[in-house]
Amino acid sequence: MSDSVELLYKQIGDVLKERDGFLLSAHVRPDGDAIGSVLGLGLALEAMGKRVLMVSEDGVPASLEFLKGSDKVVHVPDVTPEMLEGLEVMVALDTATQPRLGEGVNALFVDKGMQVINIDHHISNPAYGDINLIDSHSPATGQIVYDLLKSQGLGVPAGSRDALFVAISTDTGSFQFPSTTARTFEVVAAMTRDGLNIGEISSLTYHRQPLRKVRLLQDLLNCLELSSGDRVASWSLLNSTKERLELLPDDSEDLIDHIRSIDSVVVAVFFEELPDGKIRVSSRSKDPKVNVCNVCLKFGGGGHAMAAGARMAGPIEEARTKFLAAVDDELAAASNS
Amino acid sequence: MSDSVELLYKQIGDVLKERDGFLLSAHVRPDGDAIGSVLGLGLALEAMGKRVLMVSEDGVPASLEFLKGSDKVVHVPDVTPEMLEGLEVMVALDTATQPRLGEGVNALFVDKGMQVINIDHHISNPAYGDINLIDSHSPATGQIVYDLLKSQGLGVPAGSRDALFVAISTDTGSFQFPSTTARTFEVVAAMTRDGLNIGEISSLTYHRQPLRKVRLLQDLLNCLELSSGDRVASWSLLNSTKERLELLPDDSEDLIDHIRSIDSVVVAVFFEELPDGKIRVSSRSKDPKVNVCNVCLKFGGGGHAMAAGARMAGPIEEARTKFLAAVDDELAAASNS
Repeated sequence: MSDSVELLYKQIGDVLKERDGFLLSAHVRPDGDAIGSVLGLGLALEAMGKRVLMVSEDGVPASLEFLKGSDKVVHVPDVTPEMLEGLEVMVALDTATQPRLGEGVNALFVDKGMQVINIDHHISNPAYGDINLIDSHSPATGQIVYDLLKSQGLGVPAGSRDALFVAISTDTGSFQFPSTTARTFEVVAAMTRDGLNIGEISSLTYHRQPLRKVRLLQDLLNCLELSSGDRVASWSLLNSTKERLELLPDDSEDLIDHIRSIDSVVVAVFFEELPDGKIRVSSRSKDPKVNVCNVCLKFGGGGHAMAAGARMAGPIEEARTKFLAAVDDELAAASNS
Repeated sequence: MSDSVELLYKQIGDVLKERDGFLLSAHVRPDGDAIGSVLGLGLALEAMGKRVLMVSEDGVPASLEFLKGSDKVVHVPDVTPEMLEGLEVMVALDTATQPRLGEGVNALFVDKGMQVINIDHHISNPAYGDINLIDSHSPATGQIVYDLLKSQGLGVPAGSRDALFVAISTDTGSFQFPSTTARTFEVVAAMTRDGLNIGEISSLTYHRQPLRKVRLLQDLLNCLELSSGDRVASWSLLNSTKERLELLPDDSEDLIDHIRSIDSVVVAVFFEELPDGKIRVSSRSKDPKVNVCNVCLKFGGGGHAMAAGARMAGPIEEARTKFLAAVDDELAAASNS
């Protein structure tokens, strides 16, 4: 740890020890790192006898309700004036920009005289807090929270530890993403020595899904099309399917990995009909020479060379035909370069 | 580490240092821990200047051919008499019983005057070697090999390290199984500090699959049936599907996890038509009170309370009806108990 990080840790540690009344939140549409970091810090502060209000613009996703204390995270519309009394410090966790906390969360602390602490691992974070602990080398905000608590001699109770484990595990794709560091494994080794039940919590985190997600995968596989010599794989999600299966917004997340992983596939594309009739396109490339951002730019979208998106006019079959033709052009350009 | 384990490590370490000419192998139908342990020890011995012959009864599965040095693992029919000259020590890795090495491998060393070292993590291992290092607390044989090499001051070259990582990662289900220990995370932390490219090797290990496996999943999902109030999920794999998709024997492995993970499901059952017309049944329970071994015993099978199997007479629809009726009886008995 560098000197400046050590000082920052101590500065935040002092606030956590000396002040009372903490408001904690994370980004809209929260994932495992968002909820895990809020609970990880929140339950540790509660164990110190502090008053804590944990809030979330969009509540807690059903898939994370198994975390102990998740019922303490208040959905913003349910926040009462009494809950806000005496809050002194706002801690924003895993939130790259202040608007990403959500309008409702911002309304709870902006111009209320609270000190803002900003703890995050996104390199793009513009340091919108009064104190900013941004460590882009950490694969998860949960890992920063763990190191912060430990370095300041603060306790990490079991519920806090479990939540921070889920934060780290989900944001590293179960310790598979390139962002995973040696420190990540050391932290989890210490958690395991401390009593973490790795089998149980992994099973709750990864081996549960609603039936509708399995039916969604079936539907997508049934419309999977391979083209350009099996180098391009694509599928489409229709509004009628969303209604039939009663899908929730996050249900299709990560499903593109199923087709991206096919050996022959270089580009995977997911077409999704939106309620307004527009088509959301998500594309992934496995070859740095095949730039899907170039393709998405042609349709007013953008992103990175290997992961990009766009919104196109419908109908979906027309959008699919146009987009896949542009993918073919990009594949041809890459093989000629 | 206990004194006796320390002595055992030293005893094996001395053999590795003092002798020359090593034959290494693992169990038939090798998985990541089998091939990873063989390569992990084999490449370390080669780096020490030792003569090493690595063999496998069934070769190396295509999914593991990305491991550096995997081309040095000789498929048993390709072993020549010259390769066997001067071999002094046989090391069996990750192999619970001697016959599990395969007939061809046994023929290479039995009655040839070789010293046999048996390194494994299966509790049922009857200690068939001259020296036996059986550590059932280790989630993977690869983890034992790593600790052995490190404790004896032997080098772990990059290829060896990568192979041992894959051994550990695959045998812990990417660090999710209950068998994963704090030591597991410490070992991987050390490997990462030592230069392991976690993103690249995880991608090669987990994010590649042949198109036929995706088509197999589609076929299974299309015949998925939920019964008993969505508490029982089952699907069937027909011989005609195996032929149409040109499946290999291991292609259907682990697919039952897709339906086991459905929230409402208590029992998941996989019916597979075998070339001889018999039906292989694999069943999983998620509730300790619902004993699928009881069900399988009725059809001459067996196993554990939460994972059991049986072979039944065909045709497959008849077997499916009979087996699912017995599952219903077990569910009823469990809810009455």
